[in-house]
Amino acid sequence: MNNPTATITAISTPSGKGGVALIRTSGADAVSIVSKCFIPKSNKPLSEYPSRTSVYGDVILDGERIDDAIATIFRAPNSYTGEDTVEITCHGGMLITKTVLEAVLACGAHPAEAGEFTRRAFISGKLSLTDAEAIGSLLEAKTHSQILLNSHTSRNRLNEEISSLHEGLLSLMTTLYANIDFPEEDLADLTPDEVLRILESALEKLSKLCASYKTGHAVNEGINTVICGKPNVGKSTLYNTLCKGEYAIVSEYAGTTRDLLEKTVSLGRVTLNLVDTAGIHETDAPVEKIGISLSRKKIEESELIFLVLDGSSSLDGEDFELIEALSNSNVPIIAIINKSDLPQKADTAFINEKFENVVTISAKNGGEEELSAIVDRLFTDEKISIGSDAIVSGARQYASLIRARDFLLSAASAQKAGYPSDLVSSDVSLAISALSELDGRAVNEDIISGIFSHFCVGK
Amino acid sequence: MNNPTATITAISTPSGKGGVALIRTSGADAVSIVSKCFIPKSNKPLSEYPSRTSVYGDVILDGERIDDAIATIFRAPNSYTGEDTVEITCHGGMLITKTVLEAVLACGAHPAEAGEFTRRAFISGKLSLTDAEAIGSLLEAKTHSQILLNSHTSRNRLNEEISSLHEGLLSLMTTLYANIDFPEEDLADLTPDEVLRILESALEKLSKLCASYKTGHAVNEGINTVICGKPNVGKSTLYNTLCKGEYAIVSEYAGTTRDLLEKTVSLGRVTLNLVDTAGIHETDAPVEKIGISLSRKKIEESELIFLVLDGSSSLDGEDFELIEALSNSNVPIIAIINKSDLPQKADTAFINEKFENVVTISAKNGGEEELSAIVDRLFTDEKISIGSDAIVSGARQYASLIRARDFLLSAASAQKAGYPSDLVSSDVSLAISALSELDGRAVNEDIISGIFSHFCVGK
Repeated sequence: MNNPTATITAISTPSGKGGVALIRTSGADAVSIVSKCFIPKSNKPLSEYPSRTSVYGDVILDGERIDDAIATIFRAPNSYTGEDTVEITCHGGMLITKTVLEAVLACGAHPAEAGEFTRRAFISGKLSLTDAEAIGSLLEAKTHSQILLNSHTSRNRLNEEISSLHEGLLSLMTTLYANIDFPEEDLADLTPDEVLRILESALEKLSKLCASYKTGHAVNEGINTVICGKPNVGKSTLYNTLCKGEYAIVSEYAGTTRDLLEKTVSLGRVTLNLVDTAGIHETDAPVEKIGISLSRKKIEESELIFLVLDGSSSLDGEDFELIEALSNSNVPIIAIINKSDLPQKADTAFINEKFENVVTISAKNGGEEELSAIVDRLFTDEKISIGSDAIVSGARQYASLIRARDFLLSAASAQKAGYPSDLVSSDVSLAISALSELDGRAVNEDIISGIFSHFCVGK
Repeated sequence: MNNPTATITAISTPSGKGGVALIRTSGADAVSIVSKCFIPKSNKPLSEYPSRTSVYGDVILDGERIDDAIATIFRAPNSYTGEDTVEITCHGGMLITKTVLEAVLACGAHPAEAGEFTRRAFISGKLSLTDAEAIGSLLEAKTHSQILLNSHTSRNRLNEEISSLHEGLLSLMTTLYANIDFPEEDLADLTPDEVLRILESALEKLSKLCASYKTGHAVNEGINTVICGKPNVGKSTLYNTLCKGEYAIVSEYAGTTRDLLEKTVSLGRVTLNLVDTAGIHETDAPVEKIGISLSRKKIEESELIFLVLDGSSSLDGEDFELIEALSNSNVPIIAIINKSDLPQKADTAFINEKFENVVTISAKNGGEEELSAIVDRLFTDEKISIGSDAIVSGARQYASLIRARDFLLSAASAQKAGYPSDLVSSDVSLAISALSELDGRAVNEDIISGIFSHFCVGK
């Protein structure tokens, strides 16, 4: 780990061959370091240029002009990191990019570690911890909803929501403390009922944020979804339809799929971490047996089950066994009556009786919309607008929120029971700590390291 | 191919996941197009900002703010392409980068084709054709010498040299034409001797440029070099030493290498396109036979042969056969007496008699310096400084130069023989055309397309 006062540098663009590449340098000495290896064509020193101005010049290594490039200074605090930053845009070849980086390192910068620029942005107060997590998710985004959920607008809405909660609770606590320290002076301008109303209003906001996690999780982390069913009902056809491509081999033979196939796909607003499994039935074929045992394991770990049934034939013993086994499951199940393009023979009344969510589709011709409607209803709050509402989207954030809510619930019952202010304020204070952990106002080093270790070098 | 007046856009940074990515848009409508999908946080329209100023704002697609980013306008002619250009630096995730590109396309830009930005820079006169070729080589550069040879400084030196030749010959031709049109008026202020001196001085410059191609080729295109020798003399050890890694399997058994191993390596200032071959000897093993026949073919196509001999044992029939076979070769041969770390038994007097270039090394302990000294002497001009002298470095450039030189030689002999001015000037004019093709002042579409087709999209 670099010294927090060191000036750091890295290639911030993806590695590979491109037209241009960007080398970012950040820290108190960024301008003086880059000035040593970047000579503007004007011969006026780089450091004399105003901030946010693109300057054309040469990059120098060992006295040799290795590339012509553009340098831009972003002076503190108006930069991504909040520190003095210089960005060099040079030609994008693999070696030339590395050589420009070498030139900056030779002038005294230290190689940045993964996530170190964003970490500094957090430390200098340019970003909250939820911002940093959202940027991490944005870089990994695989669906349009994920982009919206992690956009600057969404990030700001969440920051506002948490800040407003934070400020309200801090102000309440100040009043409560005043009450404890000077009870005789009656400094507190709040009646016990007013305190309770403030607590309940904060609880309502917190519960709304907690509830948003269901949607946030479904969009950002994705729902672990298993496609299961007996052999040859069209599981792999459904998998390919949802993946929009020929990923699983489809054949007329039962037992075609044996390996677990996994892919992250987008279904309407949500993200599915989709697994196609081997058809579950009695078999002596050893490889298929392993596949079936893997299927069973995946079903246990899933958050959603797509149970595929063949609508064109009568349900048989294997179907009934599977339906029976799954009916004990705590996980939502969508019963998918497949092959609606063929004459139907399956007992749909029985299926509807057994499962709450039933949909009839022809997987080889589509069915995403029908499925999406159900999944969206089960896993998101339709009133939430992704991209503009405050949404909590990571397990860490959710855990902090739940802790804050539990402390506030305890504060509210203490207040209701007429307990002394110091008991109430102690719970409010713990709720504030939990909220502070959420956006990083107060947070321990392990949590920070955990978050930034997922970033790439250069961010 | 896009209409040359269309505004084009592409992701200019390498494809993949990084901290940031750059989307370049160029053309008459670049500012107005990007202004539609990029809203500065200040709410002042992007188009009102001065050139070369980094503006922070939001990228909009379908009314949704998808990313916060930096946009910079480079107004014509002060941009890479010479046209109005806007560069957006956004977050560097794969999907987010594509989505920002989509936003620019949705506002009316056309997807740029491979090399189209650089092609436009050439068409608008910002770059010569030799510049464009050098930038192409810079993006592909694998050695430090290649970076220096294709740097802005080197490119400019070559441009200056060609321009100075061009201008000198144009001025001479103007005088010669005046002489033809108005011979009685004696407008020409040059005597026949003066004309000859001008031609010879231009020829000298041209010959120097032609001679620089040897060095340019050795650095930029690389010397096709084959390592050959009978089995088990240490060819693969030498290959690994030059490649700085364990690429070829080395064993105590003769015939270990059968496939052709190829790698581009840097040796001192030059680049070797190095091939390790199967040891050449009589064998019945079928796979080895194929390998040996491939070796023979590679030797025929090579520009340099490293003949490896085992200094620790006496030369035998196989060595003599190989030495005899190679002595007819027109290609430079360096006889490498290997295994100098062991007691020496080979007849070095005989080897020295047979070959002009002989070096004794221990490949497993090094030997690059000794080899580099000989290769540098054979393939480069030691007086040329790579990175600051004008150096011609591609076969196309060299062919134009040779044509220009041949026409000038013919002009000089016509002048010497006292032929009329119109014959001399006609040759000078052809020489000028050849020079114009070299830097692209006049060049046909096929040549241009050939050059730009090697670029990536976004450059």
